[in-house]
Amino acid sequence: MNQYDTNNIFARILRGEIPCHKLHEDLKTLAFLDVMPQADGHSLIIPKAPSRNLLSADPGELAAIMVTVQQISRAVMSAFGAGGVLIQQFNEATAGQTVFHTHFHVIPRHEGQPLRPHTGQMADQQVLKAHAEKIRQALAAQ
Amino acid sequence: MNQYDTNNIFARILRGEIPCHKLHEDLKTLAFLDVMPQADGHSLIIPKAPSRNLLSADPGELAAIMVTVQQISRAVMSAFGAGGVLIQQFNEATAGQTVFHTHFHVIPRHEGQPLRPHTGQMADQQVLKAHAEKIRQALAAQ
Repeated sequence: MNQYDTNNIFARILRGEIPCHKLHEDLKTLAFLDVMPQADGHSLIIPKAPSRNLLSADPGELAAIMVTVQQISRAVMSAFGAGGVLIQQFNEATAGQTVFHTHFHVIPRHEGQPLRPHTGQMADQQVLKAHAEKIRQALAAQ
Repeated sequence: MNQYDTNNIFARILRGEIPCHKLHEDLKTLAFLDVMPQADGHSLIIPKAPSRNLLSADPGELAAIMVTVQQISRAVMSAFGAGGVLIQQFNEATAGQTVFHTHFHVIPRHEGQPLRPHTGQMADQQVLKAHAEKIRQALAAQ
């Protein structure tokens, strides 16, 4: 259960081999937009240290992630005028995990707007670029 | 948005005014069974310090919570032979929050078994008692 594949897509993003719409980076964490957002502003926060998921992650890494999760949560609420934020974190395929590097979903919620299904289709890159810019501005204003 | 009602049900559990099926307690956190479980072993982890949700929680409290979330996640997987664990955390009513004291859901997942809906009906107390005992045994074996 605890294998870590160094070629998972988030490891490749961390190495700069694949681009991302970056929101925030610090010594221990990286935040970027989910390219298949279930709502506008749907963000992902990952630790830089390799771990498969929360079950095997180092508690110190999780502490650092939560600081970023909180900052991104506040920023997406502000950027998209959301009424709330859903945090989700999936461990193992049975629970819905598809990329095997620890990650937290931060999803802005609006009253009466159901989440979009995970269609497997990527959002428009220009739209994602504009959303990332809005969130970065909200982060800067915190 | 950031009001904290000291009479919310989790604050009352923390004060011992309402019973719970306790799984774990330490200086900063308490873990107990959700009485309306979406799957057997559905657990809740809360900080002892008052906070409405993740948006206003102290990062140090969140760090402590994640240690307990990880321990409970491993324990419920072991106790119920689950293939994975879903972590959910709701912020504000728009996002599904119903009790306004910060809490994390830890939900064991089994292949092909959808989550039970939140019916508003409490599970049988004897069943919950037996499940709590199984999880405490798994925690003790960690």
